[in-house]
Order: sequence, then C-alpha cells, then structure tokens
Amino acid sequence: MKKPIGIFDSGVGGLTVYKAIRASFPEEDLIYFGDTARVPYGPKSPNTIVEYSVQNARFLIQQGIKTLIVACNTSSAVALDALHELTSIPIIGVIAPGAEVAVRTSHNGRIGVIGTEGTIRSEAYSKAIKALRPEAEVFSFACPLFVPIVEEGWQDHPIAFEVARQYLQELIDLEIDTIVLGCTHYPLLSHIIAKVLGPGISLVDSAEAITQYLGMLIPAEHDGIQGKDSFFVSDNEQKFATLASRILSSNPTTLKRVRLFESWFID
Amino acid sequence: MKKPIGIFDSGVGGLTVYKAIRASFPEEDLIYFGDTARVPYGPKSPNTIVEYSVQNARFLIQQGIKTLIVACNTSSAVALDALHELTSIPIIGVIAPGAEVAVRTSHNGRIGVIGTEGTIRSEAYSKAIKALRPEAEVFSFACPLFVPIVEEGWQDHPIAFEVARQYLQELIDLEIDTIVLGCTHYPLLSHIIAKVLGPGISLVDSAEAITQYLGMLIPAEHDGIQGKDSFFVSDNEQKFATLASRILSSNPTTLKRVRLFESWFID
Repeated sequence: MKKPIGIFDSGVGGLTVYKAIRASFPEEDLIYFGDTARVPYGPKSPNTIVEYSVQNARFLIQQGIKTLIVACNTSSAVALDALHELTSIPIIGVIAPGAEVAVRTSHNGRIGVIGTEGTIRSEAYSKAIKALRPEAEVFSFACPLFVPIVEEGWQDHPIAFEVARQYLQELIDLEIDTIVLGCTHYPLLSHIIAKVLGPGISLVDSAEAITQYLGMLIPAEHDGIQGKDSFFVSDNEQKFATLASRILSSNPTTLKRVRLFESWFID
Repeated sequence: MKKPIGIFDSGVGGLTVYKAIRASFPEEDLIYFGDTARVPYGPKSPNTIVEYSVQNARFLIQQGIKTLIVACNTSSAVALDALHELTSIPIIGVIAPGAEVAVRTSHNGRIGVIGTEGTIRSEAYSKAIKALRPEAEVFSFACPLFVPIVEEGWQDHPIAFEVARQYLQELIDLEIDTIVLGCTHYPLLSHIIAKVLGPGISLVDSAEAITQYLGMLIPAEHDGIQGKDSFFVSDNEQKFATLASRILSSNPTTLKRVRLFESWFID
C-alpha cells in the first residue's frame, strides 16, 4: 500500500506547490487540503493560525500520510513547532526552501521578502535567510491586498499594478537584487511584481524549491503506477474547482468538502 | 435582572450598528460578538455562512440575550431562517430595515445595492425592496475588494477611489437615485462612494434604520442605569480594540476572546 503525501494550505494558493510536486513525483499519491472556509490566514493571530494548522494536519494524518507539506507561508512561519509536537512524520514548510533559494540567488546579499501580515510579523524568512548567510540584509513588507486582488481575478487589472507599485516602491529604493514571494498567491501576480520592480531583481517562488527538499526526505515511489490525487476543501467546492482548473490546467478529479464539529467557548 | 441585547457580525464592521443602538438605547445592556477569526463571510458558501451564524447566535443565547441583532449583511441575507429555527427570541437582520429606508428614500424607484458576493448572490435586498415596492428596479453589484481595503486602512487612499470607480461606474449609468450600502464595512467608505457617484444619489446605511425596528420590538429599559457593554471576538483582541476605538471614539471596556472546540470530518 502506497502512503500518500499530504499538503495543506489556507485555500487555493497552495495548488502552485501541489503542481510542482505532482510534476516531480508522478508516482506519488497526493492529498491536498484547502481551508477555504477560513481563508485568509495572513491577518489572523499566531494562536489561531497554530490551532487551524494543527486541525488541518490532524485531518491529513488521519488519512494515513507519510509526509506533510505545509504549503501555506503563514502556517509555515508560525505553526511548524506545534506540528512537530503533533506527529513524528517529516514536515516541510515553504520558508526554509524559499530562504535557501534566495540566498543562492542573491549576489549583493540584499534580499526583499513580501508576504502576509502573519508571515512578515513572524520574521521567519528573515531568520531563515540570516541563519544561512549572516551578513545578508533582509527587508520585509506585508502586502495584504495582494491575496484579495488575486481572488477577485484582477491580476491583470491596472489596479493590481497600482497596488503593487504602492507596496514595492520602498523595496526598489533599497537596492535589493532578489525578492521572495512569501505567499502562495503571489506567483499569480509575478508578471506585475516583475514589471514594477524592473529588470535586475530575481523573483523566488518556493513551490519549486520545496520539491528538492522532498526528494531528499522520502524514497521516491517507482512502481510505474500513476499517483492518485485527492482534494479536500472546507468550503466552496465549486469555486475551488474553477480556480484549480485554471492553476492546474485540468479539473481536480476527487474533490470533497470537509466540515468541522465546533462550538464556541470562552477562553 | 436586565437581559442584554446580543449583536453579532463577521468582524469589526458591525460596530457601526452597535454604535447606533448604543446611542438610541443608553440603558440597555449590549453584548457584541465579532467573528474576527473567520472574517470575511462574504465569499463563503451559504452552508458555511449558516453554520457560522448559528454558532455565533448559540453563543449569544447562552449569555441570556433577549433579542438578537444580526449586524452582518451576509448572515442577514442567508441565515435568518436557520436562526429563527434555533430560538424564539426576536431576531433583527439588517436587510429589512435597509430595504425599507431605500424604498422611502428613492423618488424614481431605481435603487442600487452593493454588498459582498454572498449578499448579492442571495438577492435578499432585491426581494425585500420589491416586496415593499413591486415596480422598483433594483441593480445589485458585489464589491469584494471594499472590505480588505477598509481593513488595510486605505479608505482615504487614491486606490480606494480607483476601485470604487471601477465597481460603481455601471451604477451611475443606470440612473439610480438611491444606493444601499449593503455591508457594514461600506459606511467607512461612504465619502469615496459619494464622491464617485456624485450628487443626486442618496446613500442608505442600515445601522440607523435598525434602531427604529428595535424600538418597535422591545420595551425600552428606563431604570436610569447606564447599560453595560461586553465585547467578544474569536481572534485578534488587540487589533479589534484598535479598530473599535477608531469607530466608537472610545476603547471597548470588557473585551474577551472566545474559542472553538473543533475537529474536521468528511461531510
């Protein structure tokens, strides 16, 4: 029996990570969970991000996964320790691979990081980059409107360009030569980000980097059988299917909604 | 023992409703719940909006409320029936009061409605307006970026103006004379919406209208004792306190975080 690889994200953005893994590991079974009911994670508090991440991981562990990929940057930034307490299977977040590629890419050691409020506030990228290259200078900025702009389908709209210019102007002035797209939604805006930043600044997308890590962690399946895909979301199957078919260039086959037992209590 | 009035919203926007009620009912005890962990409700599916609304109402009912105010337009649009099944106490949503004021305000019977995807998709305003004035023409548009723009604090930014122009241009061409701000966040953008629409179009904010309904439903307290306020949120107490003090022009006194017992299951 093959054991699947589990991937979770706060929503649909992690499909860029799923896509990169599927391309490199055609024989692996993959289970994707998108917490579309509670997206976005970016503005939430660390406590809540940890709680939600643990619930998502627990669900995937119940499905018998052998490895957990945390595709959400915000979860990767604040919840990895809590996830390691939950399970002994290997866990890969997007921060470490992204930081490593950034360090390898940058010539002048001046690296920009953009992400959600939660990711930037955690300083996770900054710490990971400096651990690898202590003299690096890291400049981090939250770009909260990028996610809703992508979800509105306005990635080619002049307003997306104006918002990007507003957020990124300061980074240009700081003479960075590399920028980490520290949110799974941002690669979908990379054409605009590249246009605003101009030539000479490299964009780092951790979806690609994560597949190298994965290759080192797990013995690849070579049974000649095409791996199975299962998709789970907490809301809006139809909307997820539409966005997924745009990102993956094919319809997600098995797609189910997952629900929560819940009732409020005073902390 | 006074019984409090309960108010819930998906987040901080419902404080405009709370503020109007507090001003008209100084002796009532009020309990406000903002579901800041799961905001926004607008893009979520009707099933999920109903689930979350029922959980929020159940929490307020446990606190012994005598009346429930649903300050969230999206919840009011899709969850009122489910809430009435839950409890026999009076429940007031924002749709009916907003529709009534719109019908009273409009001269030419051409009324615009702007709101979240969930509110617009439900056609709740359109149905409520036509029930009161069958010959009215109602033009409804979702404006998904307005909420994140307000939460980013960009309500006076040129980009807010550009986004408003993008969303509202069609409404101007439709020669409406009245527009319903069908989301509790939108009154915080009313200066920009009014500027884009130009003179001759009246803006309807249901926060004011709801207090009239409330006055008809409950016997007002006249015990000469200033009513108490309690605020509960599901996340980010600090951020809520900051935004609340801006909206209310005073700090929320009693503010607690509420949590959920939850675990995923496959539907």
